[in-house]
Amino acid sequence: MALPIDFYFDFSSPYGYVAAHRIDAVAAVHGRAVTWHPILLGPIFKNTGGRALVKSGPGKRAYVQRDFARSARRAGLPFTMPEPFPFLAVAASRAYYGLADSDERAARRLALALFDAAFGEGRDIGKPAGVIAVAQAAGLDGSVVAGCLEDPAVKDRLRDETAQAEAAGVFGSPFFIVDGEPFWGNDRLDEVVAWIEQGGW
Amino acid sequence: MALPIDFYFDFSSPYGYVAAHRIDAVAAVHGRAVTWHPILLGPIFKNTGGRALVKSGPGKRAYVQRDFARSARRAGLPFTMPEPFPFLAVAASRAYYGLADSDERAARRLALALFDAAFGEGRDIGKPAGVIAVAQAAGLDGSVVAGCLEDPAVKDRLRDETAQAEAAGVFGSPFFIVDGEPFWGNDRLDEVVAWIEQGGW
Repeated sequence: MALPIDFYFDFSSPYGYVAAHRIDAVAAVHGRAVTWHPILLGPIFKNTGGRALVKSGPGKRAYVQRDFARSARRAGLPFTMPEPFPFLAVAASRAYYGLADSDERAARRLALALFDAAFGEGRDIGKPAGVIAVAQAAGLDGSVVAGCLEDPAVKDRLRDETAQAEAAGVFGSPFFIVDGEPFWGNDRLDEVVAWIEQGGW
Repeated sequence: MALPIDFYFDFSSPYGYVAAHRIDAVAAVHGRAVTWHPILLGPIFKNTGGRALVKSGPGKRAYVQRDFARSARRAGLPFTMPEPFPFLAVAASRAYYGLADSDERAARRLALALFDAAFGEGRDIGKPAGVIAVAQAAGLDGSVVAGCLEDPAVKDRLRDETAQAEAAGVFGSPFFIVDGEPFWGNDRLDEVVAWIEQGGW
């Protein structure tokens, strides 16, 4: 049985939003499962000297703002920049891991709903209240999700996932690892597909 | 008549090497000409706060080194990292502009020969002697090329091209502008094609 694709992302990543909407369908065509790994790029950037795209110089910043929307349009997705941006993905990521072990499909539905709220509608999912509101609108029990956000085991899980991602070489979002091969960026998803089809090159 | 694609690159850019080998064929399929613009990213980085990929943190640096070679292999090109790297593209760029006005095809042949020497064979094209050797091997008159490297008009041309590129929003290499739309990266060349075919989206 072919290995799953590891899909790493930060909820505050516009390209992560686009990739999250594409990855499962892309993988399914080739009989691959996908393991979703929400992570926090902040601690990784601190260790690696990385920085958010919007903290780039003016030319690059203008380009990526334009490209966020263009990449979403190409994938048939609405796009609105949330305010504030970047935002802290702690609450969103904990909500994901709090659900994932018992009901992975629900966790993935929540992840997409969170991304849609942030980058489809420009809503603030940086705070617990924003995350809980999205969860409730997605048919989940708000008090269960609120509990996850404060659960020490969930907090540890997010810390561990982030540390493991960094150890695996992840330094940006989205990031894919397929059969041990790393690919960075939504714009590399076609290359991930080609890698699977050709067994590498 | 459709506008040409503007193709900006720094000779010290591995992804520029790969894109230089792909761009003309890609454009020709869609009846587009390509205007080549060698530029110097150094002065642009100084103004914009950008930095060379290899000056990134260790995770990203390891990734791009792997990805340079992988991107070249996918395009059917050999790949060897030159030493030193990054190198100064002043001499290579001046040689290009010294030839371009009188014989653009020769200038383009020289550009590909310079890229092949640097990233196909790992040779040093940072110094005038390296550039002249490549030019001679490509059948050009070494003394003419040597003269270009010291020609004040050629020096001004490279300075102007770099300034105009920065004004057009260029902040990395390779960079394409098609019908006013900017695309950054060899990995966006397929998107340039799609943009032409669909007239944007």
